[in-house]
Amino acid sequence: MKKRLFTPGPTPVPETVMLKMAEPIIHHRHPEFGEIVKRVNDNLKYLFQTEQPVLTLASSGTGGMESTFVSLFSPGDTVIAVNGGKFGERWVKMPNTFGLNAVEIKVEWGKAPTREQVLTSLRENPQAKAVYLVHSETSTGTATDIEGLARVIRENSNALVCVDGITAIGAHEFRFDAWGIDVCVTGSQKGMMIPPGLAFVAVSKRAIEAMERSTLPKFYFDLRKALKAYGNNDTPWTPAISLIIGADSALQMIHAEGVENIWRRHERLATALHKGITAIGLMLFSDSPSFAVTPVWLPAGIEWKPFNRTLKDKYGITIAGGQGEYAGKIFRISHLGYFDELDMITVLSALEMTLFDFGFQFELGSGIRAAQASFLTTG
Amino acid sequence: MKKRLFTPGPTPVPETVMLKMAEPIIHHRHPEFGEIVKRVNDNLKYLFQTEQPVLTLASSGTGGMESTFVSLFSPGDTVIAVNGGKFGERWVKMPNTFGLNAVEIKVEWGKAPTREQVLTSLRENPQAKAVYLVHSETSTGTATDIEGLARVIRENSNALVCVDGITAIGAHEFRFDAWGIDVCVTGSQKGMMIPPGLAFVAVSKRAIEAMERSTLPKFYFDLRKALKAYGNNDTPWTPAISLIIGADSALQMIHAEGVENIWRRHERLATALHKGITAIGLMLFSDSPSFAVTPVWLPAGIEWKPFNRTLKDKYGITIAGGQGEYAGKIFRISHLGYFDELDMITVLSALEMTLFDFGFQFELGSGIRAAQASFLTTG
Repeated sequence: MKKRLFTPGPTPVPETVMLKMAEPIIHHRHPEFGEIVKRVNDNLKYLFQTEQPVLTLASSGTGGMESTFVSLFSPGDTVIAVNGGKFGERWVKMPNTFGLNAVEIKVEWGKAPTREQVLTSLRENPQAKAVYLVHSETSTGTATDIEGLARVIRENSNALVCVDGITAIGAHEFRFDAWGIDVCVTGSQKGMMIPPGLAFVAVSKRAIEAMERSTLPKFYFDLRKALKAYGNNDTPWTPAISLIIGADSALQMIHAEGVENIWRRHERLATALHKGITAIGLMLFSDSPSFAVTPVWLPAGIEWKPFNRTLKDKYGITIAGGQGEYAGKIFRISHLGYFDELDMITVLSALEMTLFDFGFQFELGSGIRAAQASFLTTG
Repeated sequence: MKKRLFTPGPTPVPETVMLKMAEPIIHHRHPEFGEIVKRVNDNLKYLFQTEQPVLTLASSGTGGMESTFVSLFSPGDTVIAVNGGKFGERWVKMPNTFGLNAVEIKVEWGKAPTREQVLTSLRENPQAKAVYLVHSETSTGTATDIEGLARVIRENSNALVCVDGITAIGAHEFRFDAWGIDVCVTGSQKGMMIPPGLAFVAVSKRAIEAMERSTLPKFYFDLRKALKAYGNNDTPWTPAISLIIGADSALQMIHAEGVENIWRRHERLATALHKGITAIGLMLFSDSPSFAVTPVWLPAGIEWKPFNRTLKDKYGITIAGGQGEYAGKIFRISHLGYFDELDMITVLSALEMTLFDFGFQFELGSGIRAAQASFLTTG
């Protein structure tokens, strides 16, 4: 059976990238690899819209986030973190584990943090060294207005603006320099379209200054070491060579398409999918939908497990379920990375036929028609 | 030009493994992936010769080593570490960074630590919680008698026996359970024959008990979290899926060949290469040569850079240079992983022709003849 992946990480890997990664391995101290790293570094700057270094680590995105906490701060430092889902929750737990004082901005799942919430927390915690925001919370498919909140933080504090961009980079507009961001982390298996195993961490001048003051112990995730190696197109530890070669290939695709075109493509796909899902009669979960992943309420009377099994076994479609308290209540369709218009038609068709199998009442084809109309009118 | 890699990590990746990793990516929460992880876990036990868990982390080997320090110990704990090369040196620096008290057993480069050295250090540091040994020190191509030293440590202390097996696993005889080892770490790009990006950490019951007492802060490298996920054929963070699929394929090859046959093959290749190199008139660097990598003194009058460039540009052969104070003084030929007898003839031939190019005085073909004789007599 032909299989199609609509999960928010791993995301599908383009065929040319798969084949590039399958080529005979080369040594990381060979000049040829240095050239690849240089090109990856340059294209990462383009993807993050920055002139600042974007460091590459051999770890998952969670490891990338850890590198920012242990490399920028000292025991007892206060960091504010927005918790509006499973990942935001982790960025509260993690700094507390390392002896930082994490102040939580608790946000209802499916809602984005407001300016007022951030402003209030900054006023209550004037000692805060950083505010951690999640650009696109994967567990809830909810997007945060990073540009607006970064401005609020910049205008009202000296706190560093730190962004979990793990599911947002390559889907949502993001301008590291123009928006005054200090830290942004992403993972390889998301908008970068390669398998998991790499984290990327962009750091501003203020973030680099913070590294000099940081006293938390660190070794593998010491961003000062990564920064020093970066200057020589190198990494402090053995790099994940095949994944970096994949990143090189994928970033060249990203460069060729143009990052602004990629943001527009993700908005176009998400919008059409939202219209299709609504036309079928299903309800979107998020008040501020992400362009990377779309969470949908499971209709009354349909259970997640058999629904998911039908999608997978009958139609070859893999989507994601709900997490935490929304397990069994919502499902999530990802359109992050290597997706186009007809992929949205494909997943809507499988969704319609599965709903039909389960006796859900709706006009067959209505979702697809709404998505097509959306594509035809929004260009 | 046809290129051949004789470096101690990355090592060549078998063609079937490369192609397996190039297949369409699957989701890590899919049951199919759970089956792969289960098979990897079972085959890792076989490779390490243990009934204990061997945990898989998305990091380099250095990250794997860090996971053992932060997960097993508490601030102020004493750990003894053998420093006989670049990596041993790192296993002294790293625990000190995290507030442990690392006691160094300093060993001259190219020599192995003795029982007396270990015994003296244990007597001087009866409070030591662990002894860290390097099975095959990559920088010096020197092998340590792990079985013998583990016995000394076990008979004279309660210290955990912790082994950097990064360049040894899959080359040297290693029996985690039978030898009473508590911790052993390896990396994917070594005897495992896959690209870098994974670390593997075997933990004994005593090591698991130590985890319960450990108070050092940790999150990404928390082996308790890894152990909990391990029970469900899972990992705590997004796994490096494509590399785990590669590990599955490579471990099946290892299982089919048989780990004892693999150890014997590495000994046979190393022995023949040593004889060939000596027959040419070159000098081996190590007093206790590793079966994974062979370091050789550069002959007087030949400089490393042009020598290396000729091997690379004229013969397509990549070897490794010396590290630290031996940079420019020695070169290192790796035969770790996917190598056979004729590969040794290949590298000896390139070495002979390069030496001839540089005017070194020797009988052309003498190294190859000695290696062939070694193969023919040792079966």
